[in-house]
Amino acid sequence: VRSLITVLSGGVGGSRFLQGLVRVVDPEQVTAVVNTGDDDEFFGLYVSPDLDIVTYALAGLVDEERGWGYRGDTFHCLEALGRLGGETWFRLGDRDLATHVHRTSLLRQGQTLSQVTADIAQRLGVRVRLLPMSDDRVSTIVETDAGTFSFQEYLVKRGARDRVRAVRFEGVERARPSPGLLEALAQAQAIIIAPSNPIGSIEPILSLPGVRDAVRASSAPVVAVSPVVAGRVFQPPADGMMSGLGYEVSARGVARLYAPFADAFVLDEQDAAQADDVVALGLQSIVTNTVMAGPAERESLARVVLGAAGLSFP
Amino acid sequence: VRSLITVLSGGVGGSRFLQGLVRVVDPEQVTAVVNTGDDDEFFGLYVSPDLDIVTYALAGLVDEERGWGYRGDTFHCLEALGRLGGETWFRLGDRDLATHVHRTSLLRQGQTLSQVTADIAQRLGVRVRLLPMSDDRVSTIVETDAGTFSFQEYLVKRGARDRVRAVRFEGVERARPSPGLLEALAQAQAIIIAPSNPIGSIEPILSLPGVRDAVRASSAPVVAVSPVVAGRVFQPPADGMMSGLGYEVSARGVARLYAPFADAFVLDEQDAAQADDVVALGLQSIVTNTVMAGPAERESLARVVLGAAGLSFP
Repeated sequence: VRSLITVLSGGVGGSRFLQGLVRVVDPEQVTAVVNTGDDDEFFGLYVSPDLDIVTYALAGLVDEERGWGYRGDTFHCLEALGRLGGETWFRLGDRDLATHVHRTSLLRQGQTLSQVTADIAQRLGVRVRLLPMSDDRVSTIVETDAGTFSFQEYLVKRGARDRVRAVRFEGVERARPSPGLLEALAQAQAIIIAPSNPIGSIEPILSLPGVRDAVRASSAPVVAVSPVVAGRVFQPPADGMMSGLGYEVSARGVARLYAPFADAFVLDEQDAAQADDVVALGLQSIVTNTVMAGPAERESLARVVLGAAGLSFP
Repeated sequence: VRSLITVLSGGVGGSRFLQGLVRVVDPEQVTAVVNTGDDDEFFGLYVSPDLDIVTYALAGLVDEERGWGYRGDTFHCLEALGRLGGETWFRLGDRDLATHVHRTSLLRQGQTLSQVTADIAQRLGVRVRLLPMSDDRVSTIVETDAGTFSFQEYLVKRGARDRVRAVRFEGVERARPSPGLLEALAQAQAIIIAPSNPIGSIEPILSLPGVRDAVRASSAPVVAVSPVVAGRVFQPPADGMMSGLGYEVSARGVARLYAPFADAFVLDEQDAAQADDVVALGLQSIVTNTVMAGPAERESLARVVLGAAGLSFP
């Protein structure tokens, strides 16, 4: 099956956009390239938060309210790990843990993260083609006033409260885009930048050797969706990372980041006043409801984005 | 603290005996040497069933009815692992899983099984000194009419239903007794063989280089407790392993196995008629209630066993 639509995605925002997208197009025509800069190890288990969020969301298993983890999960193992002296700030649910145990086991057996991701997706009935951005380890490192942290430490352990001074993607220069990623960009009929953290989720993907160039070189329209609505993000830490690095936390601020390679930019009705600024950046500007509260809104947003890419679906 | 009493132990039977023992003597005077021939890997996690049973029992956490695992544990992770295609015949509870995750993580960091075992015991408030029989891997392999299995496969996956032809302890010749084990035997004021599986639990310990000789050479009394009562064992698979190898499944049959190095043998009232046979093997014979139904019975059995070793406690 030829992949027609390639989406660059992080966790919660990206997963909700993808939920809407697969209500419009055949999931097998969608390739989701997912950030792995947030990946981390807890208790020797390899945890890939964005991949898991996207997988659980597309499998219909995600806790919709939190946006991550299994719906109705329990935390008995984590509690017991705490009793054994482990740090329990990273909330590993019991059912969620199965994914990490299974993934770690397959990785130790020599499988690549791409292979493991495809295996888990298939087991859980996900038909979207999920690509981790790389099979090589890239670690998003956040330098703050309070010290240097991994992404999860900064976000979960520290509650994203520290002032960000710099963000870097350790290992990204040597990392290779995962097999099929550059092809998925080259062959796409539309490239979509999901409403994800521009610094924490999209930038690591674009920083992989060849990826930004492939997006630029693509003949397909590149449509980005703003994760910022009325100056706020649905979830931290996109706001703190943007402001810390000196970017305006606004739809317009995000559009500026994407202007060098995007063709169209979708922003929320509440930010309609910024549409002209977006146009001034050389981007087509589409104003719609981007809040994605429920399935209908997610589907509607997907239709608008596909329309902006010149694709229409019944 | 000098260790006075050294107990060779398997899982359920041994753990219940130890529960009684620590009601009589200071736990810090007890060294429990625990079989690790049953250890296995599930999903890349190192599982040590007998150590866990003993640890949970002494920590007051064990599911008393089953005899293994955490009391009131859930199985959500295992169910999710099943959904991911894993084999779920080995019942890993969510809280129990924390032990395996923690242990595996520390082992991968280079700690020895002895170190990890002491760490877990300390975290859970266990004051008995727990020694895995070895820090090296020994695997109890059961050859049956239906094929060759690891101990857990034979016991749990196959339900101990296959006719046993042979039992071997893979790796035992090269394995070293864990640090302190030979000293704990040499310095003991009493050596106790717990009412555990003679073939599956006690024999692997005795088969380690130097251990059987150390038990023989010890000047301390060696007292064994029969795991067989009225021709039956509390739990499989001691019966199937004994009968398969041509041993009589009886108190007397167990006494025969231990006669070369034991001084005294404790058997149940229901087997009083076999006391003379035990004496004929050259062993002191003590008849008492060995069924260990509750705390009082366990304590009472411990007192009898200590008495047989010439030790008395208030």
